[in-house]
Parts: sequence; structure tokens; C-alpha cells
Amino acid sequence: MAHVINKLAVIGQGLIGSSITRAVGEYGVARQITVTDSSPKIRSKVIELGLGEAKVVSTNEAAVEGADLIVICVPVGRIGEVVQQIAKAIKSGAIVTDVGSTKVSVITDAAPYIPEGVHFVPAHPLAGTERSGPESGRTNLFQNQWCILTPPNGTVPGAVEKVKDFWQGIGAHVEIMKPRHHDHVLAITSHVPHLIAFTIFHTALRHERVTDSEVMKFSAGGFRDFTRIASSNPTMWRDIFLSNKEAILDVLFELTADISSLSEAIRRDDGEMLFNHLSMSRLARRKAIEKEHISVKSKPKPKPVRMLSRPYSSDD
Amino acid sequence: MAHVINKLAVIGQGLIGSSITRAVGEYGVARQITVTDSSPKIRSKVIELGLGEAKVVSTNEAAVEGADLIVICVPVGRIGEVVQQIAKAIKSGAIVTDVGSTKVSVITDAAPYIPEGVHFVPAHPLAGTERSGPESGRTNLFQNQWCILTPPNGTVPGAVEKVKDFWQGIGAHVEIMKPRHHDHVLAITSHVPHLIAFTIFHTALRHERVTDSEVMKFSAGGFRDFTRIASSNPTMWRDIFLSNKEAILDVLFELTADISSLSEAIRRDDGEMLFNHLSMSRLARRKAIEKEHISVKSKPKPKPVRMLSRPYSSDD
Repeated sequence: MAHVINKLAVIGQGLIGSSITRAVGEYGVARQITVTDSSPKIRSKVIELGLGEAKVVSTNEAAVEGADLIVICVPVGRIGEVVQQIAKAIKSGAIVTDVGSTKVSVITDAAPYIPEGVHFVPAHPLAGTERSGPESGRTNLFQNQWCILTPPNGTVPGAVEKVKDFWQGIGAHVEIMKPRHHDHVLAITSHVPHLIAFTIFHTALRHERVTDSEVMKFSAGGFRDFTRIASSNPTMWRDIFLSNKEAILDVLFELTADISSLSEAIRRDDGEMLFNHLSMSRLARRKAIEKEHISVKSKPKPKPVRMLSRPYSSDD
Repeated sequence: MAHVINKLAVIGQGLIGSSITRAVGEYGVARQITVTDSSPKIRSKVIELGLGEAKVVSTNEAAVEGADLIVICVPVGRIGEVVQQIAKAIKSGAIVTDVGSTKVSVITDAAPYIPEGVHFVPAHPLAGTERSGPESGRTNLFQNQWCILTPPNGTVPGAVEKVKDFWQGIGAHVEIMKPRHHDHVLAITSHVPHLIAFTIFHTALRHERVTDSEVMKFSAGGFRDFTRIASSNPTMWRDIFLSNKEAILDVLFELTADISSLSEAIRRDDGEMLFNHLSMSRLARRKAIEKEHISVKSKPKPKPVRMLSRPYSSDD
């Protein structure tokens, strides 16, 4: 394909960053690519792996020099400081984007440091595996997965288009959302389910009547997925929970009320209420799937991936 | 292998019952097998499929005539009435077993109808798929999966051994537990995770800020599994929730307290508490896996199966 980008910079070479580097090399999305990582060990690894024939430099400032598109692939809590650090080195007219799992906090933290004449188009690719580090990256990680862009009000449409072309160029489907709406969607579809998974495992292990090894031994099926999640990176998840606080608490509040009313129905032996509740879930799912098929139309549906032990895209 | 059983009867030919029929035929565990189902449609299907060269009869009484081992594969709530119905037709010295997901309630419902001189060894194979019906059964469904036996106090050891040999003969690993303990283990590893999955999906769909199609569209990863569960059989799950009431409420009580304290930590921006909680889950999981490996020793570990949309073994 024609190069979408002339000069691309990728900051951070964990799972997501290194997958971008690989994919850009494979699909020829950029004419030139310069990458970096704060860890010398990871930089050496990238050189050793020869990812996408990228040029590896040792500072963020050096990476962004002359870049048309800068993709920041560091944990959500560190995006603001990275933008602050590179601000003076970014060329006028360049576009800055990221891959963080929460968007309101990223915009709050980073937007104030974006220089005049530079565009900021935050993004969140819904892709990931249970692994981390540059050796775990994959060329096809974004293939048929969603990438959500959350441009702040007033963003130049051409900049949004460019970022869209970039993600489509490496195989993703792009959706545009308001940042706050993104955070609510993700609270429901990813953050709260992960929080519950952490908690349920914790509860199980301190349950006095059942031993830890029994919990593991007989947890085929659903609970295996819960336990896999419970082994994921505590720092990353702490940051996500805190940076999407409002939406997560909102969903948790409703969820707790729902759990209470189901508990009450069980306590009262209210088979009818239980049956109605469980039937409604089934019906609602069918309807939602129909709607999904209508809204996605001929677009290939993203493959459902296994329960992740890491969020969709923050890098370690 | 030598026939473990001379004459076997299987009542109910849903997913579990028909998989037993298939496996018994394949592994030669019984010299003769007679099966039945209350649905004429299912009986015809079994005849059409020619499962395990089983003899198909139209009543439960006819099925159990002369049988040495009777396996009841009907929903948990119906096991008592089936035993009551066949009681007079069971030959002296025969063994009755079942495949229900809860055990205290099955014993309470069925044990009073077991005739003098007949043995009762309740069982629960931890195996299943998202599908139901005889056409969905699989010969290898129990291969390397656990089957938990919960003989009531005073059960003749030889009868327990026979049922153990039977399950091992079709590929399962057998564990023996007290019925009440079984119900606690399953409440934690299966029933409560399923209840939460139903609830979280329900909560998501009535969340006013996010549309149903967004919930489905962006629920790659963890939430897909949750939504798959939410589409499973409401009758079956209502029965399980009601028949394992005590253990489920016990676990839900602790889980709700844990969710509240995590919510509070998020509300207070208490990153340290969150980090500790998340780290503990990870550490606990590692320890539990180590213990699991020690306790399982050289025994092949059961393959983790995907999140089930049905419980381990109750049949429709």
C-alpha cells in the first residue's frame, strides 16, 4: 500500500508498541519508523529482534524528531509526563496519539502539554494477549480488532482521518467516540469484569471451607478464566481502576444492587424472579447480537479473544 | 478392557447422558446398555444416531430392569421423582448414581426412595459444553475431567469402587468428597461465577449510557465469556441456584463485602490498598497452582475448558 505516514515514531516497545512496530514494517504503513523505550534492555531486545527494520534511539526526544505521527505506548499513568517531555521536540503539524485503556484521564493529563499547531488524537486499540514485552508482540495483533479514537472537541478532522488511516493500515476497524463515552463502554465491557475477576478469586481463596488447591483443581470452565485474570499486572490495573474511577464506580454501584436482588431472590426461594432474570439476560443477549450484526453489516466482525490477563492495550 | 458393568441403564439422553452412552460403547465399559429419555423426540434421535449400540426403551422402569448400574442424567430438580418412579423396578444389589451439579439436595430428594439392598452413590462429572441434546454429546467429554463422588455416610465401599471404576473406564479422574463440601467447592468454582456472569451482563444492558450493541461490539475478551454464559438455560440455572442456596449465599456474602471494600479503595484513591489487593491475588494464585501441582502429582491435569454456558453436568 501507499505509505500513510512519512515518518513515524513509537514511544514504548512493550506488547502493543512492538506489535505496532512489527505491523508497520509488514504492511508498509510508514516510509520511516523510529522507536524507543525507557528501558535499555527492551531497546536491545528490539534491535536483536530487528523489528520492522525500525531505527532504535535512546531518548523520546530523539525518537520524535521530524516525526509526522507519534504513537505513545506507555502505561496510562505516564502518558502526560511523556508528552511534557517531548513537547519541544515535536515538529509543527505533527499528530500525537496513544494507546491507553482510559481516555478522559489521558486527555486531562496530556492535552495541556500539546504545543500549538500539533494535533492530539487519543486512541485505544482493543487488542492484547496475556503476555507482555517486545518478544510477545505480534504483527497481526490488531487484525480485525477495534481501535477507538476519542478526539477532543475541536480536533482538526484531517488529523483524525490520518490516525484512522494508520490503524486501518495495520488491520484494525476504527470507531470514533466521545472520551467520556469510551470510558463508560470500557468500564462495562472490560474494567468491571476484570475487577470482579480479581475479587472473586480473592474471595475464593480466603473461603475457609474450601482449600486453595481445591479452588484451582476444580475450577475448570468459568473460574479458570477468572483465576488467569487474577494473575495479571497489579500496577497496570491499579492505574486503570484509578484513572477510570467515575465510570467504574457508576457500574459497580448498579452491579452490587443487582447482585443483592438476586441474592434476595435465592434467599426467598423465589424461583419465578430468578427464572425471569435469567431469561431476560438470554433474550437481551440475542437482541444485542442481532443489533450488533446489523450495525457491523458487512464489516468482518472482530474475533473474540480469550479472557485477557491484561487490559486491551496499556503497555508495561 | 474387561467390562466393568454387566448391565448398565442410563436415564436421560441429553448432553451428559448421550456422552455416557457414546463413551460406554467406545470403551467397552458395559456388556449391555439400555437407555431412555422422557422425550420421544430424543429417543428417536438416539436410535437414529445409533449411539453406542444402546437399546432404547420408552420408560424408566423398562430401562432399569435387571440393571447393575443405573445412571440418572436428568436435571437436579427431577432426580428425586425419577428414583421414586423406578424404585420398585430396581433389582436388589444394584447401584444408583446421578450426574447432578449439586449434591446435598439430590441426596435429600432421592435417598428416601432408594430401596433396601440398593446402593446410592451420587456423582458429579465436571464436564460440559455450551450445547445441549443428544446430538451434542461427545465420546471424549469426560476424558481427563474430574468426576466427584459424594457417597452418603454408611455407603458400602464396594459400591463406591464400582462407580469409581465406571467413571475411570470412560476417562475421568475420580475424587471423593462429603456432599456438603462438594456443594461449597462448586459454589465457589462454578455457581457463583455463573451467577455473577448473568448479573454483570444484565447490569451492562440496562446501563443507560451505553447501548446494547456497543456492549456486544466492544466486548472482546473477558466480557464475551460473560455474555455467552448469560445465554444459557434459565430453568437449569434457577434449579442450581435454589438447590445449592446455603453455600451460594455464603460465598455471595463474602464476595459482596470484598467488592465494597475495593469500591471504597477506588473512591478514596487508595492506590496502595488496590495494589496490595491485586498483588495478593496474583501471589495466591501462584501458590495455589504450586499446591495443585503437588496434590495432582503425576496424574494428568484435567484440561481447562472454556467458560461454560451450562453447568458441568445437569442435562436439559
